[in-house]
Amino acid sequence: MAKIRLFIEHPLAEGQGIPLNADQAHYLGTVMRQGAGDAFLAFNGRDGEWLARIDGLSRRGGTAVAEAQTAPQRDPPDLWLMFAPIKKARTDFIVEKAAEMGAARIMPVQTEHTNSERIRQDRLQAHAVEAAEQCGGTYVPEVADLAPLSRLLDGWDSQRRILWADEALAGPAQVLAGLPRGPWAILIGPEGGFSESERARLTRLAHVTPVSLGPRILRADTAAVASLALWQAALGDWG
Amino acid sequence: MAKIRLFIEHPLAEGQGIPLNADQAHYLGTVMRQGAGDAFLAFNGRDGEWLARIDGLSRRGGTAVAEAQTAPQRDPPDLWLMFAPIKKARTDFIVEKAAEMGAARIMPVQTEHTNSERIRQDRLQAHAVEAAEQCGGTYVPEVADLAPLSRLLDGWDSQRRILWADEALAGPAQVLAGLPRGPWAILIGPEGGFSESERARLTRLAHVTPVSLGPRILRADTAAVASLALWQAALGDWG
Repeated sequence: MAKIRLFIEHPLAEGQGIPLNADQAHYLGTVMRQGAGDAFLAFNGRDGEWLARIDGLSRRGGTAVAEAQTAPQRDPPDLWLMFAPIKKARTDFIVEKAAEMGAARIMPVQTEHTNSERIRQDRLQAHAVEAAEQCGGTYVPEVADLAPLSRLLDGWDSQRRILWADEALAGPAQVLAGLPRGPWAILIGPEGGFSESERARLTRLAHVTPVSLGPRILRADTAAVASLALWQAALGDWG
Repeated sequence: MAKIRLFIEHPLAEGQGIPLNADQAHYLGTVMRQGAGDAFLAFNGRDGEWLARIDGLSRRGGTAVAEAQTAPQRDPPDLWLMFAPIKKARTDFIVEKAAEMGAARIMPVQTEHTNSERIRQDRLQAHAVEAAEQCGGTYVPEVADLAPLSRLLDGWDSQRRILWADEALAGPAQVLAGLPRGPWAILIGPEGGFSESERARLTRLAHVTPVSLGPRILRADTAAVASLALWQAALGDWG
């Protein structure tokens, strides 16, 4: 059975031809040593997972044909992850982990104490694709462009609750037990912490729930994985 | 207030002199630009955290004096993390995260599908020290030498339960709600999965509880952080 999984930006259905770009053809042919007649798994974020068979590969691209659906489309719960980007390797890591853990949308945010002025959105999106290919998911979370937290909070739909990983009084066991399902976002602070005015604003918002992640100070990447796990176990698709 | 934190292998008490080795003196003097009269925070894993003042630094080492305790000793819960070492960067990451998340002992294990024949225990222990310094903990988990999982299970004290991150039927919300506190270990599988005979043995053991970490396949480093978070929230010190 094919173990190679590729995200394809093309409709998938029985007998559907699939164009492969140069990167995909290189990966299949040169890296994985596949050729005409060999199979791989394809998903596009909408049509589930399909067994696809290679027609031909060249330097400039290739074609394949979708044969049969191998898994239904499975979308993650409606959970966003907001975090302040940090050093490159750790930001890459957060994006990879968020995709694995089943976040639906990944949103780098600028806070008053965020060091990073910009991110490479295209590079982060490519990381999310790779993580989705690896983890067997049929969905790739969208990585948003860097946006100021204050602006996001200005236009926030209060139907979407925010779980705020903070030095809160209450731990996850108490906090998460009482929370409703529905659209959520997780907010991870920058390594320097939130500013006083940011904290005051977040504390005032009724749709923001603070939660403590224990007595030690977690790095942003650790806090991201830990709070995604807690949310998924309590309110998400880890049931 | 001093933000530099150093793990010191020496008793800490009021007025106690603290010898600094060459690495510590280099870090304080050259990297952090501190000198005689400047303060840092010291902990040794037993005596809590102390404000220490530098007496003098040289190339070969230095001395400091403990002035006042700034935090009591706080040990993590009695939780071990067992994992099969993978690529260097991800193994380093697991050790860093386990220290941040409050594991008491970190145990690299060899399974039938583990690729790694050996680890650099000293390098991993240094990572655990660094993570403890960063996260504000007063405890450094011991990193054990690589040992075969089968041998560990042979000599296992069944009073210590094992939470086995597996493709189990039941998710963490159901599983963790019913579990007793006490000594525990978390077992993360290798990227290639456990062998059939390993699975059969783990399934037979009454002190082993399997738990599913959701519908996607998590990398070992993700699974480690996720299961530590779930355990800490349900049974550990994140209350």
